[in-house]
Amino acid sequence: MIVQSSGRMAQPVAGFRFAAVASGIRKDGRIDTALAFAERPATAAGVVTRNRVKAAPILIASERLRGGELSAVLVNSGCANACTGEPGLTAARQATAAVAKELGVPEARVVPASTGVIGELLPAEKIAAHAPELVRALSATGADDFARAICTTDRWPKVAEAVIETPRGAARVLGIGKGAGMIHPDVGPPQATMLVFLFTDAKVSERELSGALVPAADRTFNAVSVDGDTSTNDFVLALASGASGVEVPADALRASLEKVCGELARSMVRDGEGAEHVVEILVRGLATEADARQIAKTIATSLLVKTALFGREANWGRLLAAAGRAGVAFDPNVASVSVAGIEIVRGGVSLGAEVEAEAQRRMQAESFTVELGLGSGAARFAYLTSDLGHGYVDVNAGYRS
Amino acid sequence: MIVQSSGRMAQPVAGFRFAAVASGIRKDGRIDTALAFAERPATAAGVVTRNRVKAAPILIASERLRGGELSAVLVNSGCANACTGEPGLTAARQATAAVAKELGVPEARVVPASTGVIGELLPAEKIAAHAPELVRALSATGADDFARAICTTDRWPKVAEAVIETPRGAARVLGIGKGAGMIHPDVGPPQATMLVFLFTDAKVSERELSGALVPAADRTFNAVSVDGDTSTNDFVLALASGASGVEVPADALRASLEKVCGELARSMVRDGEGAEHVVEILVRGLATEADARQIAKTIATSLLVKTALFGREANWGRLLAAAGRAGVAFDPNVASVSVAGIEIVRGGVSLGAEVEAEAQRRMQAESFTVELGLGSGAARFAYLTSDLGHGYVDVNAGYRS
Repeated sequence: MIVQSSGRMAQPVAGFRFAAVASGIRKDGRIDTALAFAERPATAAGVVTRNRVKAAPILIASERLRGGELSAVLVNSGCANACTGEPGLTAARQATAAVAKELGVPEARVVPASTGVIGELLPAEKIAAHAPELVRALSATGADDFARAICTTDRWPKVAEAVIETPRGAARVLGIGKGAGMIHPDVGPPQATMLVFLFTDAKVSERELSGALVPAADRTFNAVSVDGDTSTNDFVLALASGASGVEVPADALRASLEKVCGELARSMVRDGEGAEHVVEILVRGLATEADARQIAKTIATSLLVKTALFGREANWGRLLAAAGRAGVAFDPNVASVSVAGIEIVRGGVSLGAEVEAEAQRRMQAESFTVELGLGSGAARFAYLTSDLGHGYVDVNAGYRS
Repeated sequence: MIVQSSGRMAQPVAGFRFAAVASGIRKDGRIDTALAFAERPATAAGVVTRNRVKAAPILIASERLRGGELSAVLVNSGCANACTGEPGLTAARQATAAVAKELGVPEARVVPASTGVIGELLPAEKIAAHAPELVRALSATGADDFARAICTTDRWPKVAEAVIETPRGAARVLGIGKGAGMIHPDVGPPQATMLVFLFTDAKVSERELSGALVPAADRTFNAVSVDGDTSTNDFVLALASGASGVEVPADALRASLEKVCGELARSMVRDGEGAEHVVEILVRGLATEADARQIAKTIATSLLVKTALFGREANWGRLLAAAGRAGVAFDPNVASVSVAGIEIVRGGVSLGAEVEAEAQRRMQAESFTVELGLGSGAARFAYLTSDLGHGYVDVNAGYRS
C-alpha cells in the first residue's frame, strides 16, 4: 500500500495544489514559506502539541480547526513564532490574512504553522510581500517544494504516500513531515517542532477524519523520541478534499493514515540530529499497554541507552536500569533482553560474552530492534528512538548562533 | 561549619577507621576495595535506590540495615554486582563474610556496596583473598584512601566535613561520596551509582539519625541530575559511633547532614561526565513545592537545555518549552527568566538581544543560576544540573570497552 518517497516525485492528490517560495525569513536565502491549497473547502482534523507553552500559530490553528473545514495551510520555517505574546498572534493573523486575500478565501479558513527558533517574532510583512508570488506558484505537482521549504535541521524532506483501494475506486493519501530535533511529540485533541500535513482526496466526514487521525498520531508520532523534548509547535493536520469522489471505510482510512504517519515518524527518527541508527524499543510481557509504553518510553529517552547505541554496545545493564526507573512494577529476575535478534539476557542474567559480541556486530545495522521481555502479561508497546552522539551535541550546542 | 575537601586530608572521626586495597577487581590495578569500620557497633540509617532493579549489595544492605546497628561497610568499585541474580547475592554475602571474620564481628553487621558495570558478578574470592590485608590497613586517617578507592568515572574523590558545636562539646560529620554519571538519584526509605557514606561521632539514636538522613538526602541527592538515569546501586549510609559522647539537637544534626550531603551532591554534578558547568535551576511562583520541583526536574534533565548550557547559549525558548512539558499548569504569558543574574524574559517575551548577550557572557562562569518565575505562588524548588557535551558522549559511548 505504501510507497516511501526516495527521491521520486510525490504524486498529485486530487483537489490540492502546493507551492513554496523564499520570503527571506531564513538568513540563508533558502525557500522558507510553503502553501497547500484545497480548491474547495476541505474537511479538516488536527492534533497539536500538549506542551503548556503553545506557539502563536498553534493557538490560531486550534481556533480555526473548530470550523471543521479549511482552504489552506501556510507554513514557514526559520521562525517558530513561539513565546512571542500578543505580537506573535497578530503576526500569524497578518500572514494568513495576506495569503487568504490572494487566494480569495476567508482568513478563518487558512491555518498557520511555524518551525524554527523559539522567541523570534514571525516577520509577517515578508510573507505578505511574497503572497502573490506564492499563490501564483501553486501547482498540483508542488508537494516536493512544500516538503523542502518546511525543513529546518532535517537532512532530507519527508514524504510518504498511500493508496486506499475500494471496489468503487481508489483514494490517495499524501503525508509531508519535517523534524529531526526537539522530537518527542505529544499531540492530542483538541490540540509537533514536528510538522505533519496529510492530504487525501477521499470523501470523509470531519468525524471520520478526526477518528482516524487521533489514534494514528498517538501510535506513531507519540511513540518516537529523538531527544525527549516536546516542542511548542508540534502540529499534525489532515485535509480531505473529497475530489476522488471515493468514500473509504473507516478502518482503511485509519490504517492508511497510520502507515503514512508511521513512515514519516520513522524518517524523523532516522534523521534524528546526528543519529546513525533507528532503534525500535519493544517492551512486552506487561499487564497493560500503558505499562509497556511507559517502560518503552523511559528506555527510548535514556541518555545512557542512547549513547550506548551510538557506541554500538549491547549494554543491557543500562536497558534494565532504565526500565527499573519507569515507575512500573516488574520482576527483574524473569527479564529477557534481545538486541538485533540475539537473546543476550535470560532470567535476569547475561547469557555470556559470546552472544553479546554477536549482538554488537549486528548493531552496526542502520536499523534494529531491542526487545525486553519483562513478564508473562499479554501487553506490549514499541517506541522508536535514535542513538545520540557527537552530532547531536554539535547541532544543539550552537543552533541559534 | 563546612570545610570542603580540596586536597587537604579528611579529619578523623572518633570511633571509625578506614582502609583501601587493590583486590584486582579493576583491570587497571588501582585500589578498588574500601572498608570503613566502627570500633563499637554504630547506629545506622540508610536510603537506597528506588529503581525497581536493585543490585545484590543493595538488597543485602537493606536487609542488614533493619538491625539498626552496623560494624562495617565494604565497598568495591569496578563491578556493580547488579543484574547478577542469585549468584550475585551469594558473592556479596561471601565477600562480607570474609571481611567480617577478619574483623571478628557478625557478618550481619557488615553491609556491602558496589559500583561499576552492571551485569558483572562480584569476584568475591578476590576480596576474600585481600581481606586480611584490608583489615590490617585500617587507620583513623584512612578516609582519603577510602574515598579514592570507590571512584569510577569520577575526576576527583568527594569528601565533605562538618563540625556540630554544642555547649557540651563538638561532634564531627564526615561525608564521602562518589558519582559522576548515571546520576539522577532517587533514594528513599527503606530503600544511588551514587554512593555516599556519612560518619559521625555524635551520640544519636537510630530514629534521630534516620529522621535527619531521609530529608537531607531528599533535598540534596534527589535534587541533582547529570543524565537523568537512576542507578541500580545508589546508596546513602549514615553511621554514628557516639564516640565523641556528645548528644546533638535533632535540627543541628539534620542541618549538618544536609550541608555535607549538599556539598557532595554539588561535587558530583560539577564532576558530571564531561561537564564544564554546575547550573542551579531555580523555579519559583508555583502553588506547591511539588509543582516547582517537577518543572525544575524537567528542565534539569532536558537534553536541549543541557546542550545549550554546553554551548553557553541563553536559549530561554528551550527552558520554557521544557517547563511546558512538565505536566504542571502555568501561564507562559507571565513567565520571567533570568540567566546568571540577568533577566532576559519578562511577561513571556524576550527583553532583547543585548541582555541575552550579557547573560551569555556570564554563562562562561563555572557555576551560575537559571531562574524561572512562573506565577505568583509562594513555592519554589532548586535542582542542580550540569551541561552536556562531547565529553559525556565520549565517556558513555565506550564505557564498557
